[in-house]
Amino acid sequence: MNRLVMNVAATLLALGQVVPLARAADESSPAGSNVPGAQFPRIHPDLSITFTLHAANASSIQVAGGDGLGNGPFVMKKDANDVWTVTTAPAVPGFHYYWFVLDGVPVNDPASETYFGYGKETSGIEVPEAGADFYAIRNVPHGEVREKTYSSKTTGAWRRALVYTPAGYDQHPNRRYPVLILQHGSGENETGWTRQGKAQFILDNLIAAGKARPMIVVMERGYAVRAPGQLKPDTLVRDLEETYGAFEDVVIHDLIPAIDESYRTIPDREHRAMAGLSMGGMQTLFVTLRHLDMFAYIGSFSGPILRPGNSDSPVATAMQGSFDTRTAFAGVFADPAAFNNRVKLLWLGVGSAEPEQFHTSIRGAVAALQTAGVRLTYFESSGTAHEWQTWRRDLNDFAPRLFR
Amino acid sequence: MNRLVMNVAATLLALGQVVPLARAADESSPAGSNVPGAQFPRIHPDLSITFTLHAANASSIQVAGGDGLGNGPFVMKKDANDVWTVTTAPAVPGFHYYWFVLDGVPVNDPASETYFGYGKETSGIEVPEAGADFYAIRNVPHGEVREKTYSSKTTGAWRRALVYTPAGYDQHPNRRYPVLILQHGSGENETGWTRQGKAQFILDNLIAAGKARPMIVVMERGYAVRAPGQLKPDTLVRDLEETYGAFEDVVIHDLIPAIDESYRTIPDREHRAMAGLSMGGMQTLFVTLRHLDMFAYIGSFSGPILRPGNSDSPVATAMQGSFDTRTAFAGVFADPAAFNNRVKLLWLGVGSAEPEQFHTSIRGAVAALQTAGVRLTYFESSGTAHEWQTWRRDLNDFAPRLFR
Repeated sequence: MNRLVMNVAATLLALGQVVPLARAADESSPAGSNVPGAQFPRIHPDLSITFTLHAANASSIQVAGGDGLGNGPFVMKKDANDVWTVTTAPAVPGFHYYWFVLDGVPVNDPASETYFGYGKETSGIEVPEAGADFYAIRNVPHGEVREKTYSSKTTGAWRRALVYTPAGYDQHPNRRYPVLILQHGSGENETGWTRQGKAQFILDNLIAAGKARPMIVVMERGYAVRAPGQLKPDTLVRDLEETYGAFEDVVIHDLIPAIDESYRTIPDREHRAMAGLSMGGMQTLFVTLRHLDMFAYIGSFSGPILRPGNSDSPVATAMQGSFDTRTAFAGVFADPAAFNNRVKLLWLGVGSAEPEQFHTSIRGAVAALQTAGVRLTYFESSGTAHEWQTWRRDLNDFAPRLFR
Repeated sequence: MNRLVMNVAATLLALGQVVPLARAADESSPAGSNVPGAQFPRIHPDLSITFTLHAANASSIQVAGGDGLGNGPFVMKKDANDVWTVTTAPAVPGFHYYWFVLDGVPVNDPASETYFGYGKETSGIEVPEAGADFYAIRNVPHGEVREKTYSSKTTGAWRRALVYTPAGYDQHPNRRYPVLILQHGSGENETGWTRQGKAQFILDNLIAAGKARPMIVVMERGYAVRAPGQLKPDTLVRDLEETYGAFEDVVIHDLIPAIDESYRTIPDREHRAMAGLSMGGMQTLFVTLRHLDMFAYIGSFSGPILRPGNSDSPVATAMQGSFDTRTAFAGVFADPAAFNNRVKLLWLGVGSAEPEQFHTSIRGAVAALQTAGVRLTYFESSGTAHEWQTWRRDLNDFAPRLFR
C-alpha cells in the first residue's frame, strides 16, 4: 500500500510542476518541450543546451539532431552518479529534432516530448527566439484543432485529418469560411503543423490582430496507397509517382468532399488554398497545378521545384537542370498572363541557411518564372535552415495573403 | 540531389504502407500500434509478440512493460545481422506500455507509436481481443476530438482540454448535450483516453447503436498547482492534498465554466458526470462527493477508495483499514436514503486480475456501502489487470447508464 502511495506521490511531484529539490545555479531554464517536471534539457542564455541522461552501464552516449542544433554529435561524459551530460554549442532558435546515440543506437530522451519525424516518434526541443511571439499562446480568442475521422475510397481505409476551426466558429453557425490545406514534410505526419509548427497559435494571433481572414485549416497525412495498392519494389520511380498520385486522389476525391460536407466552408476555388513544406510543398505544386479549377492560392515552403512533363517521374527530376517555364508542370506556366489571371497567389519560399540545392532549385525556378512574367511572391527566412522555424515564418507571411 | 530523392523515396517506402521486401513466413501480423510501415513488433495467433531492435554494439537488451505483457522482462538475443529478437509469452489482450532495456537504460522502440505514461512518452502495443469491436473504428457516424485552449485562474496558466463532441454536433446548432468529465491515471495525461483508451470510438459505437445518449466528453490533465504554488518538499502529504485541491479548483472554477461557455452543454448537475481511472477515479470521488450540487453521475474505474475525513491526507489513508460509511468523504454516505435520492449513479469497478490491494479496497468499500444501503453499480472486468482494457470495458458499461 505504501508503495502505491509513494508511486502516486512521485508521479505528482514529477508531473505537478512542483518546485524541484535542486535548481541549476545558473541562468538556464528547462526547455518548453520538456515533459512536465523535467529539469533537463536546459537552455542557456546563449542558446547552448545542456542534456543529461542517467545510464550506469553504457559505454558511450552522444547527442545528435537537426541542423539547427549545431555541429554535433556532441559527446556526453559520465559523472560519479552515472549521469551523462553535455552542453552543446549555441543552437539556432526554433524547433529541432534530436536523439541520444546510446552505445550506437539512436534513442529518445525520456525528458522530452516526442514528435513524429523521420518516420517515427522522435524527441524534440524548442529553442526560444528572442522577440518572436507570433507562435506563442497569447491572450487572444483561440480556435480549436479537431480530429476528423473519415473514410477514403481511394485507399479503402479510414483516415484522420486535423482541422483548425477559428475562434467564433461555433458561435456563428451561419458563417462560412475559406479553407487552407496545409501539409507536413517527408517523414512527418498530420500532427506536424500543430505540434512542431504551432500553426493553430500562428493563426489565432494573425486572425485576432486582423492580419489574416478567419479560415479553416486542414492537415492530413501526406501518404496514401491506392486500394488494393500492390506496388513492386523494383519500380521505385513508378512507386513514387503512384504515391503522389494516390495522395492527389485522396485530396481531390476524399478529403475536400469530406471537409465541405462536415464544415461550413465556401466550397469554390476562390476560397480554397493549399500549401506545404518540403515534400508537402512538392505535393502542393503537384496537386494544385493539375487542378487549378479547385485552387486559387498556392504555397510551397522549401519545396524542391519539379519539372514534371520532362520525365517519367516528377521526383526523379527534382531540382535537376534549369526550369523551363514553357514545359514545366505540363505547360501550366506557358501563358503567363492566363496563369496570372487565374491564380491569385503563387508563394515560394526558402530559408537562407538551407542546403545549397534547395536555394538552387527554388531560386532558379523563381527567376525563370519572374523572367517569363509569372506573378509570384518569394520569401526568404533569414538565418534558418530546413527546419520548422523557417516554416512557421512562412505560414506567418503566407496566411495574411490568402482570400483577399 | 540524389541523396534528397533517395531520402524521399526511403521515407515514402517506410510510410506509404508499400509492400515490404520481406514478409514473415508465419501467421503473425504487425501490431496496429506500429508506426506506418514497421513490420515489427508482430503479434502471433496465440498473442505472443516478437520484438526486434537493430543494435550493433549493445551488450544486453530486454523487453519490459505493463502487467498484461506477460512475465517479463524478456531477454533478447542478437543474430548475425546485429538484430536483437525475442518472442514473448502470450499477452493479455488490450493496450500495454512497454520499453527496451538497452544496456540498463529504458528506451522506446522506434517501431511503435508512443503514448504518455509513467510521466513520459512510452512505447505502446495494441494486442487485439478476439470478438471485441466495441472500440474499433466502425462504419458509423463519427464525432470529433477537439483541442480546447483555455485560461486557468487557479494555476495562472493556459491549459488544454480534449473535448469529444458527438456526431451531428455541428449539424444541430440548437441542440444541447450533457457532459462527462473523464480523467486519466497517474503518470498519464489528457491524451490517454483517446489514444490509449479509444474513448471516442467507444462513444461513437454506443451512440450509433442507441445504447448511450449523445454526450460531450471532456478530458483534462489531472495535475495542477495553484499560482504561484510554492510547495515545500518536506511537506509531501500536504503537497498531495494541495495538488488534489488545486485540480479540484481547476475543474470547478475553470474547466466547467470554460466548457459551458464554449459548448452547447446542459449546465446542470442532472446532466453532468465525472469519471476517471485509478488516480482519476480517486480524483473523481474527491471532486464529485464534495460538489454534489454539480454532479449527479459518478464513476471510479479501478480507483482506490479513500477515507478522507479521518486523516490529514486522503492519499495517505488510501486503501487502509475498513471503510466507514458514516465518516468517509466527510459523511456524504451517512444518510444513504438522502444520497440515493440525490446521486443518479455511483459506479465502481475493478479488473479481476488487478493487484490484490485494489480488490481489497474497492470490494471492501462496495460491500460496506451496499450494507449501509447506498445504491451503486459494481462492475468487474474479467481477466484484465490495472491496464487500459479494463478501463475501455468500464467506459463501455458506464456510458450507457448516464443521463437516463
